[in-house]
Amino acid sequence: MSALAPGSVIGILGGGQLGRMLAMAAAELGFDVHIYTPETDSPASRVAAHTTVAEYDDEAALAAFARSVAVVTTEFENVPATTAEILVFNADAVIHPNPEALAIAQDRLEEKRFFNGCGIATVPFAPVDSRADLDAALVQIGAPAILKTRRLGYDGKGQARIASLADADAAYSALAGQPLILEGFCRFEREVSLVAARSVHSELAPYDLVENIHADGILVRTLAPALVDARVQQEAVALASRVGGALGYAGVFAIEFFLMPDGALIANEMAPRVHNSGHWTQDACIASQFEQHIRAIAEWPLASPGRLCDAEMINLIGDQVNAWAALAAEPNSKLHLYGKNEIRPGRKMGHVTRLKR
Amino acid sequence: MSALAPGSVIGILGGGQLGRMLAMAAAELGFDVHIYTPETDSPASRVAAHTTVAEYDDEAALAAFARSVAVVTTEFENVPATTAEILVFNADAVIHPNPEALAIAQDRLEEKRFFNGCGIATVPFAPVDSRADLDAALVQIGAPAILKTRRLGYDGKGQARIASLADADAAYSALAGQPLILEGFCRFEREVSLVAARSVHSELAPYDLVENIHADGILVRTLAPALVDARVQQEAVALASRVGGALGYAGVFAIEFFLMPDGALIANEMAPRVHNSGHWTQDACIASQFEQHIRAIAEWPLASPGRLCDAEMINLIGDQVNAWAALAAEPNSKLHLYGKNEIRPGRKMGHVTRLKR
Repeated sequence: MSALAPGSVIGILGGGQLGRMLAMAAAELGFDVHIYTPETDSPASRVAAHTTVAEYDDEAALAAFARSVAVVTTEFENVPATTAEILVFNADAVIHPNPEALAIAQDRLEEKRFFNGCGIATVPFAPVDSRADLDAALVQIGAPAILKTRRLGYDGKGQARIASLADADAAYSALAGQPLILEGFCRFEREVSLVAARSVHSELAPYDLVENIHADGILVRTLAPALVDARVQQEAVALASRVGGALGYAGVFAIEFFLMPDGALIANEMAPRVHNSGHWTQDACIASQFEQHIRAIAEWPLASPGRLCDAEMINLIGDQVNAWAALAAEPNSKLHLYGKNEIRPGRKMGHVTRLKR
Repeated sequence: MSALAPGSVIGILGGGQLGRMLAMAAAELGFDVHIYTPETDSPASRVAAHTTVAEYDDEAALAAFARSVAVVTTEFENVPATTAEILVFNADAVIHPNPEALAIAQDRLEEKRFFNGCGIATVPFAPVDSRADLDAALVQIGAPAILKTRRLGYDGKGQARIASLADADAAYSALAGQPLILEGFCRFEREVSLVAARSVHSELAPYDLVENIHADGILVRTLAPALVDARVQQEAVALASRVGGALGYAGVFAIEFFLMPDGALIANEMAPRVHNSGHWTQDACIASQFEQHIRAIAEWPLASPGRLCDAEMINLIGDQVNAWAALAAEPNSKLHLYGKNEIRPGRKMGHVTRLKR
């Protein structure tokens, strides 16, 4: 495949806000978008030329979708392995990022092993497939620690803290029945993330490292740039370069790090997709992470990831979105709303980027 | 009506690139969009939640459209008067801009009389409804002059130059059979335009005056800002304020001026809509003209029209769009393609904004 011509159709798995913002970025570049989602009336489908509403294991629907598009991408890492297999093996689709990258990012254990295999530090961890495993892991790692499901956790879901051995039973009961991982705590100074695009020609276009502030496991604010030593930015880019290279990655990805008091970076997790901590790039960079992702998967040249001004991104979670009128009146803010029909606690409804000039 | 809540549906008459960019701006603010266009598979409908494909005189379709939306706007001034009447009288729709503004902008004669009524200078002009009228008008105005259709002219169509009296017969023959206007030439220094938003509360948010370069009657380039004396910018804003006030206008509008060697502004025409010479605002202002128009018609506070950096906008006309790959590789350029299926000579296929920092 060479550079995908405008007018081509880009397929996106998933109909949420990331798919919506990808769809609009693709349309700006002259592409049509086909959204595949089980959800009717999804945020993404309302700005896309075509939508297929079907389950992720619907072979006929997936094959028809794959045949209708030039390239398939995804807004979420938890694409079932069978979905990717159907797209690739039954319908010969081009998928970016590749299914191997998705598979690694879907499983916290594989992800940490992958990081370590790239020479990237993580917190200590151990697989937990039984109550006895948990005891052994706690001896190895010590408390406090955190027990997590290996798969399908996001926004702090599927996690239980173990402050001391006395919490082990409750934590195990809460999560047992699925593959688990015990992760050690680390006394980090800050959480930072690097969002980068990688082209099929192995170019890496990293945005500035940003600082992320979470509450209840959900991203609340991103400060761009993170106020860190230039060597920390360089190190983060070097680590991202190794990750991208090892995965043969094409598209945008994010790595979340713990920044230690001595400046060391501990990889927490990676997202093989555009990332909430990259939303500020829509308003403070010449090309947003959404445009960069479309460029990368369409095999277009990547845009510059340079930052035009400092920015702060604030998520609008649940009924915080009701502040839209006041936010729309802020002179240096850009409001982005996702078109979700229903406000629910913890649901990401929009975000606002405050620009600092 | 107070500020329209996110999730409301905004109706847009017209499915071209202006409707497309309006639709994406509306979606960013959380609105759904309903496009009304006679064109199947239009550029705008491919980024909109809903589309009605029907003619502009289809009473039933217009009434159903009007009932499905909270407010109606338009991407083009040549909305038939009957369309507006059906929307307002049959379906009680809220239309911004109001039908009176559309009616004035549809007719070059009414438009110039309106400008003069606001104390705004125009070239000399006279109505031409017969061959004898043309002779009389040429005596009054002199040659060279330009004979134009009063209605439905755009991008240089519906015009004939009269260099001397010997051209009068040919010019009249070319255009006769519809109401005409003879306009005097003026030896202007440059063509400039002012794009401004006006709120329902009479606030005016003018962007910087820009310089426009046309070829064959089609806009080729816009330079933002126009390099003019600050007094010229102030005068243009003062004239726009009079126009907006006289029309009771809500939304974005543009006035094209001839800038004379002595700094005087001669109004050429107005567009009661977002305008090609305002496309640079997408990339060089905190809020584009498209977002401003949506804010204005939704009765949201207007955003700041301040310019963040200088910019040059180049239209991609006809097969110029085939340069997309080279344009996508320019480091400080933003490429915008309209998703039009077919390249035709003179057709606006996209634009590129070069940012100057």
